[in-house]
Amino acid sequence: MAETARQIADDLRARIDSGDLTPGARLPGEPALVKTYGVAKETARRALTLLVTEGLAVRRRGSGTYVREFRPIRRVGNRRLAKEGWGSGRSIWSADLGDREFTVADLKVYEAESPRQIARLLEIEASEPVIVRSRRFLVEGEPVQAATSYLPAELVRGSAIAQHDTGPGGTPARLADLGFAPVRFTEEVRARMPTQQEKELLQLSEATPVVEICRTAFTEEGRAVEVAQMLLDGGVYVMEYNLES
Amino acid sequence: MAETARQIADDLRARIDSGDLTPGARLPGEPALVKTYGVAKETARRALTLLVTEGLAVRRRGSGTYVREFRPIRRVGNRRLAKEGWGSGRSIWSADLGDREFTVADLKVYEAESPRQIARLLEIEASEPVIVRSRRFLVEGEPVQAATSYLPAELVRGSAIAQHDTGPGGTPARLADLGFAPVRFTEEVRARMPTQQEKELLQLSEATPVVEICRTAFTEEGRAVEVAQMLLDGGVYVMEYNLES
Repeated sequence: MAETARQIADDLRARIDSGDLTPGARLPGEPALVKTYGVAKETARRALTLLVTEGLAVRRRGSGTYVREFRPIRRVGNRRLAKEGWGSGRSIWSADLGDREFTVADLKVYEAESPRQIARLLEIEASEPVIVRSRRFLVEGEPVQAATSYLPAELVRGSAIAQHDTGPGGTPARLADLGFAPVRFTEEVRARMPTQQEKELLQLSEATPVVEICRTAFTEEGRAVEVAQMLLDGGVYVMEYNLES
Repeated sequence: MAETARQIADDLRARIDSGDLTPGARLPGEPALVKTYGVAKETARRALTLLVTEGLAVRRRGSGTYVREFRPIRRVGNRRLAKEGWGSGRSIWSADLGDREFTVADLKVYEAESPRQIARLLEIEASEPVIVRSRRFLVEGEPVQAATSYLPAELVRGSAIAQHDTGPGGTPARLADLGFAPVRFTEEVRARMPTQQEKELLQLSEATPVVEICRTAFTEEGRAVEVAQMLLDGGVYVMEYNLES
């Protein structure tokens, strides 16, 4: 019986993915599913609940279940890091979002000892200080990403990178001002289930994985100048990368 | 109580991630967790069960719970598509795996009408025929990926791409032979929970997300010549991308 609910949910998900059911569309109700699949009402309800817990659908009291309206965010790895963007004062974020409204929340900027794993990536000693910038990003009011950046304090202490407002073009532009323009980036991408704390941080629904991206930025000379650890709501992000042979 | 089990599992996961607990290491047993966290035996058991269902640990009957030994697969987007590799007859896969043993299973090669979404990416009509190559990849006996490639039949019909064995360098090398060398690639990466069918296909444990990668390959002239849809076990893969500003 649980199998059947899963199968119905998978069918509906395929229809959402194919665009047959568009964002905001009303999903078939319990009676319709009972009729189509010849299942018990309880099974039909469970199928719809699966889609809700997976973040694909929302329930409206007394009205039915609808395809989630939040549009996916397309994060184009290459475009967002292009010098044309931050070099002309735009934020990396505007490359992802176009005109969509976003806010930064819980911004904290402070100096601390480098965590061991970060120190390894920055090629510094674990006891050396780093400037840490942590914040959450909300798009149209929904938290979609938590990010923490680490930069060697000896490089950026006293610059706008150690302030709340990094100025036009943000951190990459300020690194360039200091003579450490980032020109090469490595991104490591992983998918996993969130911890309880992460689930609360991003207000994730029950069966939504997170995407963890660890980006290291290098100067022309190959010096690692920033490590950014990003935690993305797997339900809303599509990562795009453009590669050459 | 459920909260506490989650918290203990998260602590243990952090120790696995940091390398404090290495692959194959024995995790603290129930009595040790009861003592350390001051919880009930049932809670300690639930914490260990969470790690098992998430694919991070395995149980050995009468012995305890151990960190899963299967080493992650690092899939370097750039390196695997580099012409130096397939141009000299190596498979894209050997770039990911080095000396690790892998096998291809369930290989099917056939001609079919293009699915609508694929046709859009290949910029052909939905009714036009494509050569489809579908298979699963097993590493050290474990299924880690299912992949299906689609190529316009009018381009590759009669070539080794329509055979089981594509020959040295595989599909990219044969496309090059035909005058359609792939030089640019776009990869779209998504994370989500698997369907029941996908869970069986990749033998995924209970709380393991999949990573879906859709890659389109383009010739120098910008013609789309292949779309590959890949489904990866999110528990074993790390995707790496190298970018320039």
